Amino acid sequence: MSLKNKVAIIGVGCTKFGENFDLDYKDMLVESYTEALEDAGIGPKEIDAAWLATAFPDMAHYEGNSGSSLADPLNLFGIPTTHVTNYCATGMDAIRNAAMAVASGNARFAYIGGVEKMRDVPPRDSLIAQVVKTGHPVVGKGATAPGMFAMLETRYMAVRGVDRTPFAEISVKNHYNGSLNPKAHFGRPVTIDAVLNAPMIAYPLGLYECTPVSDGSASVIITTPEIAKSLKKDSILIKALTLSIDSGWNPQFDKSNQFLGFKSTQNAAGMAYKEAGIKNPHDEIDFAEVHDCFTITEVVNYEDLQFCPRGEGWKFIHEGHSTREGELPVNVSGGLQSSGHPIGATGVRMVYELVTQLRGKAGKRQLENVRVGLAHNLGGPGSVASVAILSRAD
Amino acid sequence: MSLKNKVAIIGVGCTKFGENFDLDYKDMLVESYTEALEDAGIGPKEIDAAWLATAFPDMAHYEGNSGSSLADPLNLFGIPTTHVTNYCATGMDAIRNAAMAVASGNARFAYIGGVEKMRDVPPRDSLIAQVVKTGHPVVGKGATAPGMFAMLETRYMAVRGVDRTPFAEISVKNHYNGSLNPKAHFGRPVTIDAVLNAPMIAYPLGLYECTPVSDGSASVIITTPEIAKSLKKDSILIKALTLSIDSGWNPQFDKSNQFLGFKSTQNAAGMAYKEAGIKNPHDEIDFAEVHDCFTITEVVNYEDLQFCPRGEGWKFIHEGHSTREGELPVNVSGGLQSSGHPIGATGVRMVYELVTQLRGKAGKRQLENVRVGLAHNLGGPGSVASVAILSRAD
Repeated sequence: MSLKNKVAIIGVGCTKFGENFDLDYKDMLVESYTEALEDAGIGPKEIDAAWLATAFPDMAHYEGNSGSSLADPLNLFGIPTTHVTNYCATGMDAIRNAAMAVASGNARFAYIGGVEKMRDVPPRDSLIAQVVKTGHPVVGKGATAPGMFAMLETRYMAVRGVDRTPFAEISVKNHYNGSLNPKAHFGRPVTIDAVLNAPMIAYPLGLYECTPVSDGSASVIITTPEIAKSLKKDSILIKALTLSIDSGWNPQFDKSNQFLGFKSTQNAAGMAYKEAGIKNPHDEIDFAEVHDCFTITEVVNYEDLQFCPRGEGWKFIHEGHSTREGELPVNVSGGLQSSGHPIGATGVRMVYELVTQLRGKAGKRQLENVRVGLAHNLGGPGSVASVAILSRAD
Repeated sequence: MSLKNKVAIIGVGCTKFGENFDLDYKDMLVESYTEALEDAGIGPKEIDAAWLATAFPDMAHYEGNSGSSLADPLNLFGIPTTHVTNYCATGMDAIRNAAMAVASGNARFAYIGGVEKMRDVPPRDSLIAQVVKTGHPVVGKGATAPGMFAMLETRYMAVRGVDRTPFAEISVKNHYNGSLNPKAHFGRPVTIDAVLNAPMIAYPLGLYECTPVSDGSASVIITTPEIAKSLKKDSILIKALTLSIDSGWNPQFDKSNQFLGFKSTQNAAGMAYKEAGIKNPHDEIDFAEVHDCFTITEVVNYEDLQFCPRGEGWKFIHEGHSTREGELPVNVSGGLQSSGHPIGATGVRMVYELVTQLRGKAGKRQLENVRVGLAHNLGGPGSVASVAILSRAD
């Protein structure tokens, strides 16, 4: 059970993320699709299957609630298009399903479009109101996303004996990285004082420790490694691509949960490392894009992804290991915090970043000597996680 | 590019469809899942990937908006679950994605759950209000589903020179068939006079010519043909499973559309017949479940699926070819019209019906000597169609 070396990425595209008032849902999809198609060097008639990643269609006048929302604006008729949703891990899961189609011989060239239009209208129900209605025993009490992750951070601070400093350092790192990324929602660095003194969203998470609400689209085109080679493209191989769902913050299902990390991430990462044949992630992964919806999330991701020992995620940032200059740079794009988080597009944007870096085409934010990259997408009440490992084909 | 003989169905389950006031979203999923698991003869720990088919989560308090909505009630943690939507073709598309996972070696036992809870609360926006907001040039004017299909029927009547009789005959056939199906939403036959004199919904479509709004769930478990054989299960092979998206009723995209059928169906069927190696559908398909959301839909389906020559769908029912006693029985389950139409469950329910008939376990409604069955799912403004062809493995 593996996708290793069965799928190659030959084209990627991405809009600027942010308040794209001048671009609607369709416009953004067209823009990232066109960029990916040109990058792949194929014509639109060669795409023979597609996947659409939009997590919350009710925020975009119900565009994105079926494959037609992709087929119509892109004129991709006569082929199958599947619409996938999986909370904030929607983007990577769409790529995963497309990859299995290519690996099973059911698509030669598969296109994945991630797009979310979040700044025009609020959803009909707030996201948290939706969860409340499901009667979830924790989040159903009305906790917001910042509130839930804030509880994770206060618990982490108490158990690990740290203050807000390492979390603020995550924010400083990611906002600095994002200042090098022309497609980031925010383009400015922030100081540690600014982070610590920012308006409080949910203690201890201040304004600069939370991802913004963004519009944006990202696109990926995949094929078999053999076809990629014949096209002489600068292609990137999928070494692993996994998804795992766990009970997240629901204590009904898992009384062993210590609420210091996410089992979904741990499991998706374990499966991915096995698939890719990686024994020591810290040494074998050159750089990573991880799901930093909040600063605390990135800290526990370090531990869940085995970048550092359990309990030492705070040290991993505090000692600078995950900066651009560190031995395992994380979120050189700016991450969700600076790049923005148009939900369905985010996982696709992470793969865009990995491919761009692995090809050496990341401009001002280019890392040196990167051959293996990891992307990690987390969604829902900590319950859905996806991990991709990509490497250069040569 | 084919799924032929790469995937076997080893377990199916289905709740009663209807006004299931005593069962919520989760209850229905648990019920059809448990039936499918028992039917497959495997334990829950053997399921290593899952797909959830729910088209409109906003009708079920937002349950069904991610894979967690399947993982939580079924205790299917630690595995990937993808949520798929594709209008009314959601169910078959979920099976299609799962089948590619099995065919690519990324799942040994894959589970597909289709479920829709439609009778508790209206959607936050009516379905048609959702379409209106997208600015679609035809349906965006405010036409309802009955209104759109009514226009198809008036045009068909004018061009083909027929009255309402053959459409009423579809309703009589399907309601009779449904009276033999203990899981159908409606269990009563109707007379042709009752159909023709029923309250008018949108001329010429009367009450008994429209599918009801239903609750329900259906489940399917698939694996490789080799594993199925080793389990000595009464398994059924997938001979073809296709999806095609076209522009439907949008004249902007396709000025050649004569609005007498659905190109999405024609294309999905063409691909499926090629995949299965079927030259003459009328002779080689023993029976079919087709998408009869309205009576006119079934008539044009006959033509689009090549069960009869173009323009003679009305004759195909009028002469009795698609009755239980005809040479190509269609919708022996009662179809959507009598079985009901819990949207995400419908395509899965069609596959349940095919498998049950092919195994000879359909009780009072069992057909004789059926070896090859076809299922057809149609969604959106006529834009999304899926076709499955199944056969006995022996």
